[in-house]
Amino acid sequence: MNLLVVGSVALDSVETPYGKVEKALGGSASYFSVAASYFTEVGIVAVIGQDFSEDHVDFLKSRNIDVRGVSRDSGLTFHWKGRYSDDLNEAETLDTQLNVFESFRPVIPEEYREVSFVFLANIDPELQLKVLEQVKDPKLTICDTMNFWIEGKLEQLKETIKRVDILIINEGEVRQLSQEYNLVKAYRKISSYGPKTLVIKQGSYGALLFTPTSIFSAPAYPLEKLSDPTGAGDCFAGGFAGYLAKIKNVDENELRKAVIYGSVMASFNVEDFSLGRLRTLTFDEVEKRFKSFEKLTRF
Amino acid sequence: MNLLVVGSVALDSVETPYGKVEKALGGSASYFSVAASYFTEVGIVAVIGQDFSEDHVDFLKSRNIDVRGVSRDSGLTFHWKGRYSDDLNEAETLDTQLNVFESFRPVIPEEYREVSFVFLANIDPELQLKVLEQVKDPKLTICDTMNFWIEGKLEQLKETIKRVDILIINEGEVRQLSQEYNLVKAYRKISSYGPKTLVIKQGSYGALLFTPTSIFSAPAYPLEKLSDPTGAGDCFAGGFAGYLAKIKNVDENELRKAVIYGSVMASFNVEDFSLGRLRTLTFDEVEKRFKSFEKLTRF
Repeated sequence: MNLLVVGSVALDSVETPYGKVEKALGGSASYFSVAASYFTEVGIVAVIGQDFSEDHVDFLKSRNIDVRGVSRDSGLTFHWKGRYSDDLNEAETLDTQLNVFESFRPVIPEEYREVSFVFLANIDPELQLKVLEQVKDPKLTICDTMNFWIEGKLEQLKETIKRVDILIINEGEVRQLSQEYNLVKAYRKISSYGPKTLVIKQGSYGALLFTPTSIFSAPAYPLEKLSDPTGAGDCFAGGFAGYLAKIKNVDENELRKAVIYGSVMASFNVEDFSLGRLRTLTFDEVEKRFKSFEKLTRF
Repeated sequence: MNLLVVGSVALDSVETPYGKVEKALGGSASYFSVAASYFTEVGIVAVIGQDFSEDHVDFLKSRNIDVRGVSRDSGLTFHWKGRYSDDLNEAETLDTQLNVFESFRPVIPEEYREVSFVFLANIDPELQLKVLEQVKDPKLTICDTMNFWIEGKLEQLKETIKRVDILIINEGEVRQLSQEYNLVKAYRKISSYGPKTLVIKQGSYGALLFTPTSIFSAPAYPLEKLSDPTGAGDCFAGGFAGYLAKIKNVDENELRKAVIYGSVMASFNVEDFSLGRLRTLTFDEVEKRFKSFEKLTRF
């Protein structure tokens, strides 16, 4: 196992102008691991409840994902219910039931501790820090977070990100965390907190990669049919981290390609609800869309 | 003279968090022509008032801009007063005095009528159409417009754009004009109105170029210091059209480069108020920033 993700596995009920699903497979660790599984062997540390179907577990296994770190507790699985309006830009949360996720204390199985690549999905920064304390000497650590933790646990969050190599968050979160509107200034501030590489997710506008030596701008893939943006950010992170873990190289050029693979995986994921599109997606299609990104940006 | 612009010449009073100017040189034709002058010979058709300083005229002439089509009427020059808030994204208009611009009826001088490249800046679509009726057989016509005309003169606007090759408008205007949120669908709708090439300006997110055969995505240049976004769209159009008029070629590859030159000119323009930055800008700096766009996007 080459890449570890610690995050949520959830059952999501989502409604968009293009349809809806009830208690479908969701959660950051699910989206991340399935997207990353196109590139490398991924292991999940997460918690599920009694209601979590074995079919979902089998699906993850079918993607060669190591689920030995997924524990089944008494109680129900984390459930999120949300709705997107016409532009699909922002989700309105209708219901959140943490259930077994509320008492989630990630324990990294002994056989995972020497993993080289670690992704800390968006969970309590104190738990993220506990994960970092359990892994031995990872080659690369990547971290996500959200406005909730920036507002509520800023000091703990700063403790965590001090110890990670790459922070992947969205534009609004970058501004909130750095207290800088200008993204060039925001990167400098955030890199002073610790992570020398910053990936800024900009939704339908693409992504920016900041490193100490350069800036890279990646577009989003211009899709005509979008069904459900849920999980796009985690699929982006999955493609990004999965590619890096596969080639075991974090040079500038490879980081750039990783951003494109992240964008590729996110672009497929929004084409259907839940992980629907990734159930049928082939690696050939992934490579073909990677090529389209070249055509989309070359001049 | 190779490229004709018909639009406004104005005196702008602008305030941003980074400073302010009073009655500084502005207007779509001014920004456009100065940006385009780095690439080709431009001629302006516009109107100024008695208060318009000869210094401004001399500045335009110093850029080799043909001002024989600029008429000085009795009355005052078009005046716009606006303020930008912290994020510099949206201008709040504090005052608009059309003055001599109110009765502007563009007359294309005889010696301009065989021009090959025409840019119709954002003015009343009925006037834009009258310009098209006066030029003989242009190789390429490019058109801008704004929400005001989409709301108030939609049928006249459609008459005009039916006859142009390229439409350059911002994202909000694209959605308003096409009644489609999705930009791929919006392009298809707009191309059914006439223009087969659509350039969508996305401000700090860059620009998209749609042609019948492909989509090109260009980033905005990540600047740390922005002073005043006024005129950025017109400088974009000036760099875009100026480059095409220079190389006299509108192949797909050249259209892509033109989008980048447009982005380059816009990125310089926002570094200072009014046309301040373009008063000192050299073509070497333009070429250098064009190269930075390559570095910004290559993977």
